[in-house]
Amino acid sequence: MKKIIVNSYEELSELTANIVVSTMLQDKQVNLSLTAGSTPKRMYELLLEKMSHLGELTNIHYYTFDETPIRNQEGQVVGFDNFDGLKQSFFEPAKIAESQIVAMQDDNYSNFPELISAAGGLDLMVIGMGDDGHFCANMPECTQFDKAVYRVKLTNDFPWNAPYQEGLKGNYSDYMYTLGLPSLLKVQRVILIVKGASKAAAVKRALTGPLDQNFPASYLRLLPNLTVILDQEAAQQL
Amino acid sequence: MKKIIVNSYEELSELTANIVVSTMLQDKQVNLSLTAGSTPKRMYELLLEKMSHLGELTNIHYYTFDETPIRNQEGQVVGFDNFDGLKQSFFEPAKIAESQIVAMQDDNYSNFPELISAAGGLDLMVIGMGDDGHFCANMPECTQFDKAVYRVKLTNDFPWNAPYQEGLKGNYSDYMYTLGLPSLLKVQRVILIVKGASKAAAVKRALTGPLDQNFPASYLRLLPNLTVILDQEAAQQL
Amino acid sequence: MKKIIVNSYEELSELTANIVVSTMLQDKQVNLSLTAGSTPKRMYELLLEKMSHLGELTNIHYYTFDETPIRNQEGQVVGFDNFDGLKQSFFEPAKIAESQIVAMQDDNYSNFPELISAAGGLDLMVIGMGDDGHFCANMPECTQFDKAVYRVKLTNDFPWNAPYQEGLKGNYSDYMYTLGLPSLLKVQRVILIVKGASKAAAVKRALTGPLDQNFPASYLRLLPNLTVILDQEAAQQL
Amino acid sequence: MKKIIVNSYEELSELTANIVVSTMLQDKQVNLSLTAGSTPKRMYELLLEKMSHLGELTNIHYYTFDETPIRNQEGQVVGFDNFDGLKQSFFEPAKIAESQIVAMQDDNYSNFPELISAAGGLDLMVIGMGDDGHFCANMPECTQFDKAVYRVKLTNDFPWNAPYQEGLKGNYSDYMYTLGLPSLLKVQRVILIVKGASKAAAVKRALTGPLDQNFPASYLRLLPNLTVILDQEAAQQL
Repeated sequence: MKKIIVNSYEELSELTANIVVSTMLQDKQVNLSLTAGSTPKRMYELLLEKMSHLGELTNIHYYTFDETPIRNQEGQVVGFDNFDGLKQSFFEPAKIAESQIVAMQDDNYSNFPELISAAGGLDLMVIGMGDDGHFCANMPECTQFDKAVYRVKLTNDFPWNAPYQEGLKGNYSDYMYTLGLPSLLKVQRVILIVKGASKAAAVKRALTGPLDQNFPASYLRLLPNLTVILDQEAAQQL
Repeated sequence: MKKIIVNSYEELSELTANIVVSTMLQDKQVNLSLTAGSTPKRMYELLLEKMSHLGELTNIHYYTFDETPIRNQEGQVVGFDNFDGLKQSFFEPAKIAESQIVAMQDDNYSNFPELISAAGGLDLMVIGMGDDGHFCANMPECTQFDKAVYRVKLTNDFPWNAPYQEGLKGNYSDYMYTLGLPSLLKVQRVILIVKGASKAAAVKRALTGPLDQNFPASYLRLLPNLTVILDQEAAQQL
Repeated sequence: MKKIIVNSYEELSELTANIVVSTMLQDKQVNLSLTAGSTPKRMYELLLEKMSHLGELTNIHYYTFDETPIRNQEGQVVGFDNFDGLKQSFFEPAKIAESQIVAMQDDNYSNFPELISAAGGLDLMVIGMGDDGHFCANMPECTQFDKAVYRVKLTNDFPWNAPYQEGLKGNYSDYMYTLGLPSLLKVQRVILIVKGASKAAAVKRALTGPLDQNFPASYLRLLPNLTVILDQEAAQQL
Repeated sequence: MKKIIVNSYEELSELTANIVVSTMLQDKQVNLSLTAGSTPKRMYELLLEKMSHLGELTNIHYYTFDETPIRNQEGQVVGFDNFDGLKQSFFEPAKIAESQIVAMQDDNYSNFPELISAAGGLDLMVIGMGDDGHFCANMPECTQFDKAVYRVKLTNDFPWNAPYQEGLKGNYSDYMYTLGLPSLLKVQRVILIVKGASKAAAVKRALTGPLDQNFPASYLRLLPNLTVILDQEAAQQL
């Protein structure tokens, strides 16, 4: 693990955007997997600005790494928790062509690792982590550490499920799927970004605590080429 | 360049087949580009035998590296000089599925480098060389050293053309296409195999002479990870 | 994981030797880490024969992956459990120069991962596994899964220790050190070889059971590019 | 080749510095080879600023790619044309430890490619080009395109020599050595930076003209993973 502590969220966002751009500008098809969520919001703003100066980047392909389909009370799919966020933060404003995006869905999730392998593997993945220790959709209580990809039925056996369903405002999700640890172990380079004091304890546990299956992010330490970028607050317990 | 001189054609064939098998047995999609022609004949026999013990190898994809469509007097395509040879020596007896083969053709040759890049690049290429110094279909007098792929119109401006057309027995070819030097420079590993005293002078010129655009194989020395396997006779002028 | 089941110990040895040779014959410094023990005995015989035809192979460097210094009753080191085996099976008969060997010892074990990184990483590691699930010297009850390298004091807290000490015939060992899982996760390619019916249950547990910290070999499934080569007997419970 | 045209020298410098930083922040020994000269001056200023926020970067090793020892009238070496520039622009202000620098010198130049290979190869090289088409010290009239490294005696057979010697102000150089094309072809990634209208014709010739041994930079197009970064003025003839 290469650990970098920067002064601010702005520096974290700038550095991460620069690593993404740097990876993009190669003479090859480059396969990226980028996280949605709140942590990378500023990173995407900077990335959009930087990409606007760099001409066509049709050599970049994007793979999502997890998905939770969202349904209305009639059971119809009305959204995708991960893809919709990426679409709004990045794919749409960056005008990424559909042909450059491979989104994990019902009909392809089970062979997503093969799709990635058939494209030569992922060059770069940028992920965050939750204060409960989740990464991608590898959640406490239900992570299958030896599966390259897997599906989880969402039930109230998991303490995190009820709050999650409440956040969907009348809609619901009945399952999710995610790349698992073996898939991340095959990525050329993974960047983990964490900001804010509210995650300081989780950062400490992930980076210095025991490997703990109930705190999945602790297993990220096994990644062969991991760069961890923290702001001062997220690093304050290290 | 890593140069290996073995005692016999049998040893050359065995060693080459072993390198191919070794490359195949990885936990990833493996992209191979193998040569047709007489030099690898024994290598294919050994490879078929070895593969028969190794179970399903559906993770291997095969890319041809050049092609010369062959036409009858009515101008209809009746064969493919490279693909037909590979089909007979290897694809058919090894029962390779069509979905694992990407053959260079009229409608895809111009973006073959992009097809290869989209699959993560070639892991291994096995090539031979002619006593006129050609490799793939990079022939004397017409090699375009800076092109990743290109097409050549076959005319009698090239001294090698008339004998070639004669060998087609009433049929003819009007053009060929081939991967060029920049594509080979991107391959993870290239194996050059040469056998027999009749190629000893060409081997000497390719491996120790000046870089000479009229002897294209001299440029193979630039490859970043080239293994040259020669029998004693091919190496006798070194 | 790419799993290959061959007919016999001879085929297992031949295939493994071929992968080692294939990896050796590149135009670069190649860093290998090969296992001692009884499983690879025949592989080394075949490797020695093959290498005798291949000329100088001074581009190959060898790294041991664990060590247990052996002491006499006066406490003096009189041998090295791993290195001495490799020396006898391979380094001495293959006449490998000392400058090509980096052996893990008291004075370098703690920065062995850095030594490997400074040489560009390991290209290939060949390992076995014990019927107790150990790999390298990652033993049941004491494996530190998040350590790139670590030392273990040998005590009778570990059920495997007493039989091990008895095998030393009047000598003893007080500690051992080993590369750990994070180091193996960085190797370009790992080959796991297992032979014989006596290991069939362990093979089943390692390859199909849960990730179990008391059965360290189960974690080998996480390796990004693992080839498992089994003879029929070792595979009989799969 | 991946070609990026940016608006200004400042943008060129910023983008290049970001690629260097991005490459540095990996969990491995990273081997860099950076150019001296006037083009990267601003890049170094930005790099120094960025590195000052990134903590210890002892995992980075620096390899120079050419050298011209400078002598006084008594024949004593009084300086190194390349190293002294790098020392001033970068090594000294960045406080790079001597143990992280491998400088090409009389006593090691001939096996510099082996030194690089023994460290796992170069991860990144940043180079410029001259309006005479030179890259590194591969000069018109004397480039040996098939040599991984070579030495050239400086004589007035070369039109560029007299002006060069004059610039040494009473001192002189009698030879230089440089990595050659085969060494650059082995680098994971090469960045070529060019600025200013005075190089626009050379850029056009290098990137779009024939492969021409008297204009060495034309051969850079063969590099397997080249990123060319140009400001508007350098790109104005494309």
